[in-house]
Amino acid sequence: MAGEFDFIHWIQRQQQADGNVILPAGDDMAVLRWSSADLLLVAVDQVIDGVHFDSAIHSPRQIGRKVMNRNLSDCAAMACLPAGAVACVALPRGCGHEYAQALYLGMREAGDAFDCAIVGGDTGSWPGKLVASVTIFGRSAGIEPIKRSGARAGDWIYVTGALGGSILGRHMDFVPRIALARALAQAHRLTAMIDISDGLSRDLAHICRASGVGADLQSDRIPIHDDAWTLAVKDGRPALQHALHDGEDHELCFTSPDAITMPGIVRIGQTTAQREIRLDGQSLPAAAWEHTL
Amino acid sequence: MAGEFDFIHWIQRQQQADGNVILPAGDDMAVLRWSSADLLLVAVDQVIDGVHFDSAIHSPRQIGRKVMNRNLSDCAAMACLPAGAVACVALPRGCGHEYAQALYLGMREAGDAFDCAIVGGDTGSWPGKLVASVTIFGRSAGIEPIKRSGARAGDWIYVTGALGGSILGRHMDFVPRIALARALAQAHRLTAMIDISDGLSRDLAHICRASGVGADLQSDRIPIHDDAWTLAVKDGRPALQHALHDGEDHELCFTSPDAITMPGIVRIGQTTAQREIRLDGQSLPAAAWEHTL
Repeated sequence: MAGEFDFIHWIQRQQQADGNVILPAGDDMAVLRWSSADLLLVAVDQVIDGVHFDSAIHSPRQIGRKVMNRNLSDCAAMACLPAGAVACVALPRGCGHEYAQALYLGMREAGDAFDCAIVGGDTGSWPGKLVASVTIFGRSAGIEPIKRSGARAGDWIYVTGALGGSILGRHMDFVPRIALARALAQAHRLTAMIDISDGLSRDLAHICRASGVGADLQSDRIPIHDDAWTLAVKDGRPALQHALHDGEDHELCFTSPDAITMPGIVRIGQTTAQREIRLDGQSLPAAAWEHTL
Repeated sequence: MAGEFDFIHWIQRQQQADGNVILPAGDDMAVLRWSSADLLLVAVDQVIDGVHFDSAIHSPRQIGRKVMNRNLSDCAAMACLPAGAVACVALPRGCGHEYAQALYLGMREAGDAFDCAIVGGDTGSWPGKLVASVTIFGRSAGIEPIKRSGARAGDWIYVTGALGGSILGRHMDFVPRIALARALAQAHRLTAMIDISDGLSRDLAHICRASGVGADLQSDRIPIHDDAWTLAVKDGRPALQHALHDGEDHELCFTSPDAITMPGIVRIGQTTAQREIRLDGQSLPAAAWEHTL
């Protein structure tokens, strides 16, 4: 497919010099220098038309930003520094070069904000809809990766921002909390951390299951986003429910034995030895979060 | 989606201990130890239903093997050792757990043959057809990565096996030439290397363009696969044309100033200072390879 090669050559021309990238996209594999002090962290996340975005509404640039930012948010959740990424795209046949370029430039824009170069990729076209994925690799860079499994009963539970209603638009355009995560990890003992992609109740459940603890949440401490209130008016579900269960906020939820007071950091409860999540003393059903566009 | 979490937990239970994997799939990112002596190599390749396989014909296990083997073949092309992989799958809604599991087990089977663990992934389901990608990372492990750009005029051009007609079935089931590539790189001065995925004429053109050289090929030296002869009978195109232009052989094409005599290694010509590819002295048109299932 001549078009595909044109696109790949175009991407190669977009690449910037990066001291750690010995051989960028264009060969069979990219080659990177790796410091002996660094652990290698790897994650992959995809976005699918009709599931994570709607190509009839969202621009290719937004879609590109989202798929890269989802991966950068994984770096935040581990408190690592992004070091590079590769992208994989199944393009709708006939979408055109400008569309493909805008998709790449969206990924690039999001990556550039964190010095995360796109060092390789694979593109193909097909009669189906758009599927795009990014694989990101990060460096521990002096901070031990924060797992989900280290919370102990009695730790405080925190989130990094207001939650709920991201479907109104924020799910396409959020800022990965990498700098905040690393600042927190350097200043405090973080025992477990996750980025809120499936919804607070579900992602906190991931931490609880991995750590063998439960959680007591206080409803009056859950930070409710303005979008959750707007959505509550629209759909009649309480704003608190949106804050607890909506997905794709991409704020961080973490646990620490430390009493942390930092702007934007909200303490929402405490981990417990009982393996269930309670809200104001009542068992909180882990409402399955179904993403509907 | 409860089904997705079931599948992810099932995958987590399949994981084997690996000394270099500090934290496997299941957290936000996998964490791997990395030797200070090693460069990090990264590539990604996808397979798309109707383009790289046909889900009506090929089993999920075959499809899983193919997408992993495509990436392992990239490792062969750089003469690096695979160190790990992450997978990303957009599953047709309702395909069922057994289908998804067979897909994973196919990837796993191919990876296991080269001690390449699957350390993470992302799955989602949608109304579209199957798209699967694997990102692989490799270690240089004592061998300088072989780029496409190092060929010099006068080098010999070699391939590692018979070519053509892979569409008859071999394109789903090939053996990545990793061991051979590393043995060659340790014994000889390899100046450029690529795996033949787009077809010999096109992949050799990639080496020539990257290296700033041309090539003189001898038609009577091109190793023609039995499948190319079978296909020639079917479609009336000469078997040599299939060997020259068909894709997805996943043999290696490489250049070296050394006269190499090893079982299975075939010398097919020589690089030149004139920037064109000639066959028996005639200019060889770079026939665009169109993959049709």
